Amino acid sequence: MQPVLADSVRLTGDGVLILDRRQFPFERDWVLCRTAEEVARAIEDMVTQSSGPYFAVLYGMVLKARTLEALPFDQARAQLGETARLLENTRRTNNALRKATEVVLEAVDAAQDVTHALRGAEEGDRRYRAKSQALGEHTATLLPDKATVLTHCWADLYLTETVRAAQAQGKTLRFFCTETRPYLQGARLTAETLIEMGVDTTLITDGMGAAVLQSGEVDALVTAADRVTMDGHVVNKVGTLGLAVAAHAFGVPFHAQVQAPDLLAPTTAQVEIEYRDGAEVLQVLGRPSATPRVKGHYPAFDVTPPRFVTDVVTDRGVYRAGELDKYYEGEQR
Amino acid sequence: MQPVLADSVRLTGDGVLILDRRQFPFERDWVLCRTAEEVARAIEDMVTQSSGPYFAVLYGMVLKARTLEALPFDQARAQLGETARLLENTRRTNNALRKATEVVLEAVDAAQDVTHALRGAEEGDRRYRAKSQALGEHTATLLPDKATVLTHCWADLYLTETVRAAQAQGKTLRFFCTETRPYLQGARLTAETLIEMGVDTTLITDGMGAAVLQSGEVDALVTAADRVTMDGHVVNKVGTLGLAVAAHAFGVPFHAQVQAPDLLAPTTAQVEIEYRDGAEVLQVLGRPSATPRVKGHYPAFDVTPPRFVTDVVTDRGVYRAGELDKYYEGEQR
Repeated sequence: MQPVLADSVRLTGDGVLILDRRQFPFERDWVLCRTAEEVARAIEDMVTQSSGPYFAVLYGMVLKARTLEALPFDQARAQLGETARLLENTRRTNNALRKATEVVLEAVDAAQDVTHALRGAEEGDRRYRAKSQALGEHTATLLPDKATVLTHCWADLYLTETVRAAQAQGKTLRFFCTETRPYLQGARLTAETLIEMGVDTTLITDGMGAAVLQSGEVDALVTAADRVTMDGHVVNKVGTLGLAVAAHAFGVPFHAQVQAPDLLAPTTAQVEIEYRDGAEVLQVLGRPSATPRVKGHYPAFDVTPPRFVTDVVTDRGVYRAGELDKYYEGEQR
Repeated sequence: MQPVLADSVRLTGDGVLILDRRQFPFERDWVLCRTAEEVARAIEDMVTQSSGPYFAVLYGMVLKARTLEALPFDQARAQLGETARLLENTRRTNNALRKATEVVLEAVDAAQDVTHALRGAEEGDRRYRAKSQALGEHTATLLPDKATVLTHCWADLYLTETVRAAQAQGKTLRFFCTETRPYLQGARLTAETLIEMGVDTTLITDGMGAAVLQSGEVDALVTAADRVTMDGHVVNKVGTLGLAVAAHAFGVPFHAQVQAPDLLAPTTAQVEIEYRDGAEVLQVLGRPSATPRVKGHYPAFDVTPPRFVTDVVTDRGVYRAGELDKYYEGEQR
């Protein structure tokens, strides 16, 4: 059975339906976005995150294209290009959104016809799932049977495909997951989905990772990465760095998952870290959790240097952080 | 002005008044414990923590002694001894509680009179505050003017005395504090008290410590320790280990504060780590924060090995983690 979060952005006749991850699993509300602009706002408001925005952008482009069918191609294409930029700018640390707009625009440009946006989106959807599946299989191969895995935040399809591949390989995995403040993606999305998939799962707070890594109970730290630079820096949800440093200190391998290292980011100089409103640190699910007199600080991502990364698992296989060039070997740049 | 948390356990005519730290600063409720047994329950229920239980045990002993005045001394002493064991066992990782019962029993034994419990408790109170003050002064001396300090959980009098001493030395400190899940002592107690004391304070989640340490903004990691073993292991609120490992990785000194290393704990073999109910990880201030289908894991403390500890600050001065024997030099064992 497909876990619900693995199919939580859906194109319908009247818009894009997005499962609201902010309240999941306490509530299972779907937000209907009738326009690309509403999709952009939903992404900015964190209705969906992780892989969710990629799919939302694919189908947000289709919504826009639907409104442009009567226009001459050049005008339609120009407007669609503007929408692409709007959607890409909703989450600036992740480059998946640029890939989503690209695959749609490529289909449109090849046909010189905006109605081909749907075909492009479907191709992008298929491609993303196939790469996640390959990456999950490579990750599962790295893990021994009965391995205990520590994960952070919500790795979305990378996680579900890893579990599915391990199960197909006859392996039983056990997971620790961090709650991942301030949004609690681990406590809500990861924990719920792992349990949906029949995995023995234990939740810890974000401060407990080092103790669990030190205890000898954990065989591997596995997280997704929003981006991996060509020189091996792993950009992911804030908290990953601390876990990676602790894993390194206690001899636990850290496998970072990303479909591909980012050619647009030779180094971290090309990566903009998103700072979100510090007030979000002062609350939990909308309720105050701190003295209202303090100010909060919320870097949404952190950057793990390659010395703390054992390897990077991609759709094409496993690479050491120092040899990511090999991913593109033989390809035209 | 004394911050409210620095005087939050008070002996009165009809019992011990304890400020309820579980809801502070959202609510400022005082729990009145009329008996030593009620004091024990309040400590177990986390009404107070950090230094709070030490003072609660001092005065809990006085409450018990008040009920024993009519008995022959031997009987009274025996019952008071039982109460001491009851109170000591409320938090097993911290040895401060044994010191609290000891100072009261010493006064009682010296006078062969249980009414002397009050004198013992007052002596214990004075001694604890004097040691915290000395320790605060030594810590402040280690910190440069305009230092930015990262702290974790709630170091209680060690923190307030450090800030007070720094202010007396003409230094301005700035703090980052972690929220410290699951009880949010950092977000509620530390942040509120630092602001009460006029300190520029920024709150982060427990997962952000490594990123802040990596950023170069932090001059020192300073935390209290519940216990420090003679071989230099620092036992403190879970989360300390991860911060210490990250501080070490990024070249930030870690100063651990404790009145004295623990002669009863030559190594960690003598330290029992308290595991609390895993269900506490699944909620925030009583409200669910995780899928109810997951199980939680809650080691209340972690153990930082000496290789990640720069020094241990005591009431007698600053010692490297490998030379804690020097604290007791010249003393009769």
